[in-house]
Amino acid sequence: MSISAKKWVFAEKLTNKPKKDFFKIVDFTLPEVKDGELLVQAVYLSVDPYMAVSNFYDATGGIKIGETVPAGEQCAKVLKSKDSNFPEGSLVLVACGWVSHAVVPAAQCKKIPDFGEVSLSLSLGSVGMPGLTACLALFESAELKEGETVLISSASGAVGNVAGQLAKLKGCKVIGFAGDDEKVDWIKELGFDHAYNYKKVKLDETLKKSAPDGIDIYVDMVGGEWPITAFNHMKVGSRIVIIGQISIYNKEPSTLPALPYPFFDILMKGMKIHGFGVFNYKLETHDGHIKYLLNLVSEGKLKYKEVLYEGFEKQAEAFEALFDGSHFGKIIVKA
Amino acid sequence: MSISAKKWVFAEKLTNKPKKDFFKIVDFTLPEVKDGELLVQAVYLSVDPYMAVSNFYDATGGIKIGETVPAGEQCAKVLKSKDSNFPEGSLVLVACGWVSHAVVPAAQCKKIPDFGEVSLSLSLGSVGMPGLTACLALFESAELKEGETVLISSASGAVGNVAGQLAKLKGCKVIGFAGDDEKVDWIKELGFDHAYNYKKVKLDETLKKSAPDGIDIYVDMVGGEWPITAFNHMKVGSRIVIIGQISIYNKEPSTLPALPYPFFDILMKGMKIHGFGVFNYKLETHDGHIKYLLNLVSEGKLKYKEVLYEGFEKQAEAFEALFDGSHFGKIIVKA
Repeated sequence: MSISAKKWVFAEKLTNKPKKDFFKIVDFTLPEVKDGELLVQAVYLSVDPYMAVSNFYDATGGIKIGETVPAGEQCAKVLKSKDSNFPEGSLVLVACGWVSHAVVPAAQCKKIPDFGEVSLSLSLGSVGMPGLTACLALFESAELKEGETVLISSASGAVGNVAGQLAKLKGCKVIGFAGDDEKVDWIKELGFDHAYNYKKVKLDETLKKSAPDGIDIYVDMVGGEWPITAFNHMKVGSRIVIIGQISIYNKEPSTLPALPYPFFDILMKGMKIHGFGVFNYKLETHDGHIKYLLNLVSEGKLKYKEVLYEGFEKQAEAFEALFDGSHFGKIIVKA
Repeated sequence: MSISAKKWVFAEKLTNKPKKDFFKIVDFTLPEVKDGELLVQAVYLSVDPYMAVSNFYDATGGIKIGETVPAGEQCAKVLKSKDSNFPEGSLVLVACGWVSHAVVPAAQCKKIPDFGEVSLSLSLGSVGMPGLTACLALFESAELKEGETVLISSASGAVGNVAGQLAKLKGCKVIGFAGDDEKVDWIKELGFDHAYNYKKVKLDETLKKSAPDGIDIYVDMVGGEWPITAFNHMKVGSRIVIIGQISIYNKEPSTLPALPYPFFDILMKGMKIHGFGVFNYKLETHDGHIKYLLNLVSEGKLKYKEVLYEGFEKQAEAFEALFDGSHFGKIIVKA
């Protein structure tokens, strides 16, 4: 079996602004499949904002030129199996970087449950890592309770739209912000109680109006002035869950706003602030959450929006689109 | 039965610096004991730093002149009972303010377990609210694990010394700071791995030296520059638990230091910051922790230091002593 395997590697030049020229595509030869390994072929690949983080930390140190671009997970098909738990033709989630094919230890692969009528691409979206992140942020980290007021900063994004819909399903009041009117219309359709175009309103004033009694849970994906402003609107017993900082990945740390002395309020309000460190966060098996999300999608209770890029060679372009604000829903590459 | 009941009330003048003149002692007449109520007599009373907080918030608004000074709990003896669960002569913990006697609903009283040889005064200290706070901060909020590095800012105080000893019993490395050499000697005796007089060292340098790999848990009771500096030394997966802010209760909020943009580190390190709001925090039944502490004291594994003020009329003086740095261990008033 001769396979034309391709992979994306880091190209010569990295700057502070994430773009497709960071990467280039190269051919490579696959190793032999040994006992306990699988040869897999990418079906769907994802692009994730956190890939820009190493760059933010150190534009030359963290990343090695010529190395395969790491990634979250891809949805892949088993072409050849030397592990009886994974028959040929079955589908798995595996983190093996931006590659068209890979030989991977079966132990690193997760079986994808039967999606039935639901699109498999959602294994990377609302029924995959982003959906699971929304579940973990709301139900485990923030311990969301019925009737609470939930603020979501990037509400049309892959995690944000799921978080907002889940909070609505649990009887919460949900306030969402997005970056253009079309996105705002969409999150209104999803049932958000308040939806704003953040380019057209002032956050502080808008929160005073939409959450006069304060906020119980803030799910921050944006960073910058957002958590600084939201902090002052947090209620007694409130929780801030930081799951992303997309607005600041390409900024110098010294230019970021300071948080006015927070520890007195944190004490007096019994607040919790929790960071979901994407690099530290072990994506363990959370079958319960995944089944819950899958059921919601098949019942039509959890809506989604995907942007599909066709072809493995579109991966870098799809990545760049993450940062230009043009995407709307989860960006997926179909290999 | 004629009882000379006395209570402490807020006096005319309140300023930003907590002192005994905030309070004056007055006689009052006890109401009749109705069904479901108990007449109790104070045995031990406590003074707690958080009583200065209302003052910090608003020197004239939060506190009403002439009102009874609220308090945490006192250890009291039941003199007359109209609830069969609390026989006359039994001992209870009850929050009824700075009073020598009170008629209280039995439902608000907690039975004190059998202290055996252990001094009952510890029901307000190492085996009471402060000890329980240390347990909850370390074991529930911070989920302390064996071998972690724990920083305690006010290590000779009522909560801090217990927290440090508990962390040592769990095999942690413990770094403590106190305000004079005598206190430092004491926390060294208690087994702290590193103990410093914070008036003689620079926090940042000292942490670099004593915790070169960083800190897993910081229990902050002090506030001000402390949590700001400690923040930069926190490890991946670390937790900051805010249980007090004693250094800033008499400061203007505008003079407090800002925290340089923290949300990126909170995300990347998967950090947790948790405030134990003393006013929000419901002191529910935590029998397991109380029994654990009681056993440790009777086995000599948990040491303690108390400062005893004799007489109900010493209450205000004892309170002032909380803030002048002269106390050493838990301040208790024996009524």
